[in-house]
Amino acid sequence: MKRSDRLVSLTNYFFENPKKHTSLPFFSTKYNAAKSSISEDLVIVDRVMREEGIGHLQTLPGASGGVRYIPNLSRENSKQFIQDLCNTLEDPGRILPGGYLYMSDILGDPNMVKQIGRVLASAFSDMEINVVVTVATKGIPLAYAVASFLNVPVVIVRRDPKVTEGSSVSINYVSGSSRKIQTMVLPKRSLQDNANVCIIDDFMKAGGTITGMTSLLDEFNANVKAIGVLAEADDEEDERVVENYTSLVKITNVDIKQKNIEVLPGNLHA
Amino acid sequence: MKRSDRLVSLTNYFFENPKKHTSLPFFSTKYNAAKSSISEDLVIVDRVMREEGIGHLQTLPGASGGVRYIPNLSRENSKQFIQDLCNTLEDPGRILPGGYLYMSDILGDPNMVKQIGRVLASAFSDMEINVVVTVATKGIPLAYAVASFLNVPVVIVRRDPKVTEGSSVSINYVSGSSRKIQTMVLPKRSLQDNANVCIIDDFMKAGGTITGMTSLLDEFNANVKAIGVLAEADDEEDERVVENYTSLVKITNVDIKQKNIEVLPGNLHA
Repeated sequence: MKRSDRLVSLTNYFFENPKKHTSLPFFSTKYNAAKSSISEDLVIVDRVMREEGIGHLQTLPGASGGVRYIPNLSRENSKQFIQDLCNTLEDPGRILPGGYLYMSDILGDPNMVKQIGRVLASAFSDMEINVVVTVATKGIPLAYAVASFLNVPVVIVRRDPKVTEGSSVSINYVSGSSRKIQTMVLPKRSLQDNANVCIIDDFMKAGGTITGMTSLLDEFNANVKAIGVLAEADDEEDERVVENYTSLVKITNVDIKQKNIEVLPGNLHA
Repeated sequence: MKRSDRLVSLTNYFFENPKKHTSLPFFSTKYNAAKSSISEDLVIVDRVMREEGIGHLQTLPGASGGVRYIPNLSRENSKQFIQDLCNTLEDPGRILPGGYLYMSDILGDPNMVKQIGRVLASAFSDMEINVVVTVATKGIPLAYAVASFLNVPVVIVRRDPKVTEGSSVSINYVSGSSRKIQTMVLPKRSLQDNANVCIIDDFMKAGGTITGMTSLLDEFNANVKAIGVLAEADDEEDERVVENYTSLVKITNVDIKQKNIEVLPGNLHA
């Protein structure tokens, strides 16, 4: 295969297999090309990825000498994306009862969801995360987007204890803002012991849902390495029960009567 | 930018923007290259995509002369993927009470979900679909995967009428297999009138859930252009209330006592 063709094929391969360690001999065989040619190809792919701010190739030394694609979004691209998101969200027509924000159009757009996932995954790319955990329903697409860039599976906590997949572990927790008692459940076979977990959700008010997830994950001896949310509600800061988290945007000064709202960048690049 | 660099960048662009019509002048400006050079690049990208069975570039004639990436999986790749899936699912340890199959590991793997989405999207790529509709919870990741390849938004029908996002339309329907009355709800602002819809779900038994979705979509004057499911339960064929659908695999001869199960390719390539 010629270099031009290899470059297209290699680019496809890396995007399909983020964070996967692949040896140079694998590519030599696949393309019937010398290792030195493949190395030159990789330099080109790496350079373009860096220039476009979509990540880079990480070379792994040693006898098995391989390479893997780290899909980091550049800080510049990430900041620009978040600013655009703030502008989109700062529309008074989005205000819902209870100080929530209508975001279903954004969460329903696979491209937007993918970009949000890319931003969060970039923030967590240095951590050794084994699994992304979210709670049904709205956080699910974001969790998959993050997980696809981290190349790890997704586990979904449910609020509905009726659905069984073999034996389950369930907990009751107090919702942070409404003070209601709620239930969360996770099938035993869905999560291994001692996993390094990244929690993803769409929206955090006081943080009761995430605290509930953390308690449930304790039952699996999981280590919560990172918590990522699309949006946090600033007004609840005094009551916040979650401390270490990453947010893309911060919703503040929601005035339902005046139909006014302010959306600022979250703590990711603060 | 040199050809080698352009090829990496173009490949990235097409994978990030499936089915999006882009004009040649856009690329000429982006890469500061002659239209003839861009045309040659596109020939190379198209050839490799076809060789790898991951789709092709569609050239659009006329003054605005553009191009778009159609992410079709080749029939060969698709059949092989489905066969591998059958083998994975044909594990007696997966049998759950009620004749359901444990598939959470597969539905929790972003790479698997993406591939399933690619297979289904390829089957529907000639239809003018505006939106993918699914029902919470398990179909959500598949719906996003299909939608990302079709470059359309996702709308999620909920069973829980308590969650409101402005005014909603709700219906009651009879579950096909359990004969229970259930509720489905969709916010009014989530779906435009007369949309061309593709329904996606993970599992179909008698088809009551999908019939329910169809009834709900009638309220929005939607045209159901396609129905795609990962798995159908063959044993329910006599009672099936849905006729035109596409399935990847067919689960048959589930013998809970003998711990036996047979998984065959569905009707996609039949």
